[in-house]
Amino acid sequence: MNILIKVTYDGTNYHGYQVQNKLKTIEGELSKAINNTLKKETKIYSAGRTDRGVHALGQYVNFYTDTTIDLGNLPRVINFHLPDDISVISAKEVPFDFHARFSAKEKIYRYVVYNNKYRNAIYHNRAYQYPFSLDLSLMNESFKYLIGQKDFKSFMGRDAIVKDTIRTIYSIKVKKDNKFIYFDFQGKSFLKNMIRIIMGTAIEIGRGKKDPIFMKEVLEKQNRKYAGPTAPSCGLYLMNILY
Amino acid sequence: MNILIKVTYDGTNYHGYQVQNKLKTIEGELSKAINNTLKKETKIYSAGRTDRGVHALGQYVNFYTDTTIDLGNLPRVINFHLPDDISVISAKEVPFDFHARFSAKEKIYRYVVYNNKYRNAIYHNRAYQYPFSLDLSLMNESFKYLIGQKDFKSFMGRDAIVKDTIRTIYSIKVKKDNKFIYFDFQGKSFLKNMIRIIMGTAIEIGRGKKDPIFMKEVLEKQNRKYAGPTAPSCGLYLMNILY
Repeated sequence: MNILIKVTYDGTNYHGYQVQNKLKTIEGELSKAINNTLKKETKIYSAGRTDRGVHALGQYVNFYTDTTIDLGNLPRVINFHLPDDISVISAKEVPFDFHARFSAKEKIYRYVVYNNKYRNAIYHNRAYQYPFSLDLSLMNESFKYLIGQKDFKSFMGRDAIVKDTIRTIYSIKVKKDNKFIYFDFQGKSFLKNMIRIIMGTAIEIGRGKKDPIFMKEVLEKQNRKYAGPTAPSCGLYLMNILY
Repeated sequence: MNILIKVTYDGTNYHGYQVQNKLKTIEGELSKAINNTLKKETKIYSAGRTDRGVHALGQYVNFYTDTTIDLGNLPRVINFHLPDDISVISAKEVPFDFHARFSAKEKIYRYVVYNNKYRNAIYHNRAYQYPFSLDLSLMNESFKYLIGQKDFKSFMGRDAIVKDTIRTIYSIKVKKDNKFIYFDFQGKSFLKNMIRIIMGTAIEIGRGKKDPIFMKEVLEKQNRKYAGPTAPSCGLYLMNILY
């Protein structure tokens, strides 16, 4: 049967998601834990990679198995084999042709800014702690230029090797809750570093260094060098994937 | 002048709050950072100790100084000398006879339970992850016996060396937010481990192992051995102190 698990992790102590030779990665740990659980080498299929330091509340992985472990117990058994900062929070059977990556319809990411003059230890590595005030209406205005199907080449990390840089963003919603600002991105899929580069650019706009129209200008240049800096990975959370 | 600073920390990586010879503690790190900031050995006065692993969003410390550093910059300068998991979030001048501990009128603690069948990595060390369902109305009922001035000897850690075990709890409020349950304790002051032992006892009641009246029986026994286990420190936050 084909099993889909939902995974959460604190990305702080890993070299990103994807398996790498000799480096500790989320996927590497998951793969080991699933092999240990099923007592069998088992190929796993992940919904998507996250950058080094990025967190997840809703990453998905599927794998084929003939295990007799009850589905209700499976997360607990896999968790037993996982380190404390990675966990499985659900497991269900999916159709045989279901693929965590290719069956994904929508991805939801959240970028968290802790906006305070002084850093707060309790949110270390869990939010981007930004000390200057941000004009959210300007940021909101700039996001409008990014909604829909666009060529996001300007917002792709330089080391990415993707040819097709056209992506679709359905919505970018901004919520303020005390000193936290949440930026919720919903889209079909995203390029490498895309949300972090959009955030780095939007923060320059929110701080008043650039006008909202700058976002449109950057988009049209189709060149990474015109966009703002890549915002820190610790503020980014893969929240969920819709199938 | 007499300066009062508000301090936050993630207690995970420290041997508790209070200075200990050769062990890394929150107070030890604060003391070093303040000495380095003021370039002078400076005695610090802390509002209260927290157990090993307990967090704070509102610990307070005062000290006397003739520094010329602007109060608005002081948190940032001290933070520069602090590790990432301890931070100062405000500084203000207080009257000469103000003492972070003796001037405190009220302390507010929060105990955080993440109540889910499976553990969630992102809340590791930040909440007590409890897998069984809890009846909050039973827990609420049991808390009623604890409100007011009582002898809380049954809820004091065995290694405490306090003689007067009478304390006053003003309120214990329970809030549910999705899978999180927050238990907010407000009181004049608390005995060592008191909130954690109350929580350990309340969880036995919430799980249905004991009736709510059990809390009253334990209280009246005035003996630690009748209470429930000490709930894990990682769920406890010192939220604020009122002066």
